[in-house]
Amino acid sequence: MADEVILLDFWPSPFGMRVRVALAEKGIEYEYKEENLSDKSPLLLKMNPVKKQIPVLIHNGKPVCESLIIVRYIDEVWKHKSPLLPSDAYQRAHAMFWADYVDKKVRYIALRDRYGYPVVKSMKQERMSSWGVFKLLEGELGDKTYFGDDTFGIVDVALIPFYSWFYMFEQCGNMSIEAECPKLVAWGKRCMEKESVSKSLPDQHKVYDLLMDLKKKFLAK
Amino acid sequence: MADEVILLDFWPSPFGMRVRVALAEKGIEYEYKEENLSDKSPLLLKMNPVKKQIPVLIHNGKPVCESLIIVRYIDEVWKHKSPLLPSDAYQRAHAMFWADYVDKKVRYIALRDRYGYPVVKSMKQERMSSWGVFKLLEGELGDKTYFGDDTFGIVDVALIPFYSWFYMFEQCGNMSIEAECPKLVAWGKRCMEKESVSKSLPDQHKVYDLLMDLKKKFLAK
Repeated sequence: MADEVILLDFWPSPFGMRVRVALAEKGIEYEYKEENLSDKSPLLLKMNPVKKQIPVLIHNGKPVCESLIIVRYIDEVWKHKSPLLPSDAYQRAHAMFWADYVDKKVRYIALRDRYGYPVVKSMKQERMSSWGVFKLLEGELGDKTYFGDDTFGIVDVALIPFYSWFYMFEQCGNMSIEAECPKLVAWGKRCMEKESVSKSLPDQHKVYDLLMDLKKKFLAK
Repeated sequence: MADEVILLDFWPSPFGMRVRVALAEKGIEYEYKEENLSDKSPLLLKMNPVKKQIPVLIHNGKPVCESLIIVRYIDEVWKHKSPLLPSDAYQRAHAMFWADYVDKKVRYIALRDRYGYPVVKSMKQERMSSWGVFKLLEGELGDKTYFGDDTFGIVDVALIPFYSWFYMFEQCGNMSIEAECPKLVAWGKRCMEKESVSKSLPDQHKVYDLLMDLKKKFLAK
């Protein structure tokens, strides 16, 4: 029996994009189901009863939740091509550290910028500026092709979705990411040359327009 | 050459305790170095320059950071005994989901209760009450011996350190965890019968006394 793979997702979600990129890297056929987050489907509520969030990967009827856990699951189950995690345990822990860093830090830049104010400024560990986060990531990237060195890996998968949010970050934060972090932007463009990435990410302007609409609705309340 | 293993830690840290428990489960000899978090050692700053946080495991000179990443690293490197993660990919993803849940949710109960106010109440996803978190965990535990079923696994390792904070939670939150979540408390007592756990966790009253001292200092500022 062929694998049945279903992805519950919402198109502008960077977390959903991670899963789309990983599935595309592995060449896995799947059914994409768009969720309306204001009116979540019974399937989503059944498959992720704890968090009720997308993305959820349903593999032969069984749900896997949390984007980085899903990406690692995909890498462990479909081993035939495009390894996303290093085979060496130390390198794997190093990659997971940076994927986790992206998860915890860039997520909050997104929250801050989406709503135009620092949602989490009371948390000391989140006080670091957006620049600080991007510059640290640029430092880790250095002159490598990808975060995974010559191989497009889990740190790349974790971060690249936010490339589709860069225009929004720049507009909301009144900053030029390219001027401050040219290597990071060059990396983003390099990743976008991969079909697995370009076909999984929405246009930057489309993301910006949607988030401006949400911001208006949010601030009007 | 024998492995050189060093742990940079701070005794009341639940995150440090996770690593202590995992090392004890595996029977790994290591050098414990207590950190003064008000005056961090040059070694800590060198080994975790990004986050400057404990715990850090230094294995043959190379640092691994972030408690759950360290626990998984330990499990992957020292495979000879006490597997902490399931061998099946789906079960592994399921375990990681709950370990991650503990990491994200119980951490914030700790923050809330330590300082006596809801540090993160502005974040919608953290609004769930302490009770809600504990009750969900109790539901996941059910009638199993451990979260890992018959096997003490990564979810147990992730959560058991907070057992040493239960007295503090109860005192600060004016609640009885045992009355509301008897299975969870029975699980905690069962884990404490394991030497790997009991020798890695401090006394509940010692944690409470320290945190009360910190609270006084914090509120006096």
